Amino acid sequence: VRLIAVILAGGRGERFWPLSRRSRPKQFLPLLGDRSMLATTLDRLDGLVDPGDRWIVTARDLEKEARRHAPGVPAAHVIGEPVGKNTAPAIGLMAWWLEDEGTDVAVVVLPSDHRVEPADRFQEEVREAARVALARQAIVTFGVPPTRPETGYGYIEAGEPVEQGSVFHRVRAFREKPDPVTAETYASDGRHLWNAGMFVFPPALMLQELRAHEPRLTDLLSRVPRHGDRSSLAALEPYYEAAPSISIDYAVMERSDKALVARARFAWDDLGSWEAVGDPGTRDAEGNTARGVVLLEDCGNVIAFADEGLIAAVGVRDLVIVRTPDVTLVCRRDRVQEVRAIVGRLKSREDLDGYR
Amino acid sequence: VRLIAVILAGGRGERFWPLSRRSRPKQFLPLLGDRSMLATTLDRLDGLVDPGDRWIVTARDLEKEARRHAPGVPAAHVIGEPVGKNTAPAIGLMAWWLEDEGTDVAVVVLPSDHRVEPADRFQEEVREAARVALARQAIVTFGVPPTRPETGYGYIEAGEPVEQGSVFHRVRAFREKPDPVTAETYASDGRHLWNAGMFVFPPALMLQELRAHEPRLTDLLSRVPRHGDRSSLAALEPYYEAAPSISIDYAVMERSDKALVARARFAWDDLGSWEAVGDPGTRDAEGNTARGVVLLEDCGNVIAFADEGLIAAVGVRDLVIVRTPDVTLVCRRDRVQEVRAIVGRLKSREDLDGYR
Repeated sequence: VRLIAVILAGGRGERFWPLSRRSRPKQFLPLLGDRSMLATTLDRLDGLVDPGDRWIVTARDLEKEARRHAPGVPAAHVIGEPVGKNTAPAIGLMAWWLEDEGTDVAVVVLPSDHRVEPADRFQEEVREAARVALARQAIVTFGVPPTRPETGYGYIEAGEPVEQGSVFHRVRAFREKPDPVTAETYASDGRHLWNAGMFVFPPALMLQELRAHEPRLTDLLSRVPRHGDRSSLAALEPYYEAAPSISIDYAVMERSDKALVARARFAWDDLGSWEAVGDPGTRDAEGNTARGVVLLEDCGNVIAFADEGLIAAVGVRDLVIVRTPDVTLVCRRDRVQEVRAIVGRLKSREDLDGYR
Repeated sequence: VRLIAVILAGGRGERFWPLSRRSRPKQFLPLLGDRSMLATTLDRLDGLVDPGDRWIVTARDLEKEARRHAPGVPAAHVIGEPVGKNTAPAIGLMAWWLEDEGTDVAVVVLPSDHRVEPADRFQEEVREAARVALARQAIVTFGVPPTRPETGYGYIEAGEPVEQGSVFHRVRAFREKPDPVTAETYASDGRHLWNAGMFVFPPALMLQELRAHEPRLTDLLSRVPRHGDRSSLAALEPYYEAAPSISIDYAVMERSDKALVARARFAWDDLGSWEAVGDPGTRDAEGNTARGVVLLEDCGNVIAFADEGLIAAVGVRDLVIVRTPDVTLVCRRDRVQEVRAIVGRLKSREDLDGYR
């Protein structure tokens, strides 16, 4: 089985503002170490996917930045979408371009900004998923057994295993982000898994299922030249203009009987907030997490992230403090979701828009 | 009466760190408006003291910065002390240099970093103090009627007025910073006044009183050439090396029977902390004070000072937040005095010393 990786790196998440910015969203940030999330995602593929078989789909204005974080990926494999239309148009396009790579190929679609550990287990499970995807002609997604009643993730309800003892299950349903009560049930019933947003499939099968369930998209694709020259990139404009903005979950996975879910044994987190960055493993005795040059004097439960310069804090608790070259954010830990309100206010004020 | 002003601008206060730095202490900061405290102190003298009759005593390494804030002051009137020795050596030196300006001269010694308002009332009171200082041959200091039981100031206990109904009183005692219980008494007994650190005197009288009470200092002064050429500046090295480090309060005011205290009618504050900067007049309805580019989302009782860039805060209360080009400070409002602990830690770490 030859694996071809497609990394989705077009997100604009505002949850890590001010570290993440319009021009430098989460996938380009070194949230967990010295390297960006995108670079770490690529590192995780070493030994699994040949550098020449890696693709990155991002926004057009992020193409250049994406290439900086992906020096081993062929420049022509970094695709800048003229307009973001969720995951289905991007995955459909890649299936269309990769279909003629042969029948021994499995495409692995991966987010660019999640935590996945350890890499060797991840690789083992992706290889297994690719074998199953080809052998059974299935679209395999990964479901992570919940460790908490998370309301910020979508869930997959697993059905019967494909054979006794297998980690591959039929899919009973895809579930939207639940309310807290429902999340408690999901976290404990043993059937619901976190939707990790990863997919493994033969490209022809994905096209077949898109044709069956979202024919508008395959009609549009048929007008896009196969990849190989610049004309195919020029053709992306009308394709993206006309494509519906829908997720691959909605377009295919919820409708197709080819969907399988693999119970993941690797650790996964979508790093949806500063909370996730300040994870227990990096805390000091007072519950503080510090990155960069940080001095804390009698502080507790503080996440301090100095992207540049020094952060000093005295006598404060339960805060997220972020310093970037032009912005300082101070936010109560339990209100990080409201940072979007700040970003919204910046957007509405011409004089402050540059801080977005 | 000709008034000659001597501005003491050698302080190194760390209370406004990180806005104040070793190389840019409080007197050079625009804490109350667009202009620095020193520039504002000089502005306050317009119409009262001729620019050519203004002197500034500062630290040698701050001379250049002091001149930047005092464009009207003759360059030769900005004196850089080779080593700081509190106020008595500086005031003694200026009295020595100004003694031969004549008998119709009063020297006005002023701190460079206090709030004094309004300027016209201040000028009126200084003029009156100068008249009294010459007529009665007195050293007049200003005492501000307390508006709160402040433990951060020294106090002057006023005795009898020099004549019935006069604002000029004999001095009964100088008091160190009191404990809270004593401060309550001082604030309500009508006799105790805040020591504003301002002095008005005929220079010959100051020298006479120094000779009487601190003869070591006048002995040293007799070896310093009168001002007028560079040799006098060179002579400052041995003078400051040998001079005792004592305040004029301790050296003269507490011992001399020439001391008078004027009950001030101008408003005064020594701006000893961020608390003083966030004064009621500039607060919003939630008790927040903001300077610079600041966005507060559901915050209360916050002092935010963006010297550069943007400060954004969400859901926090009772904090001081300061952003400078290389440091962010977040401190509980009631613990601002502990910022010194941070500065101390910076001093002890070679890699962080540059943030002092």
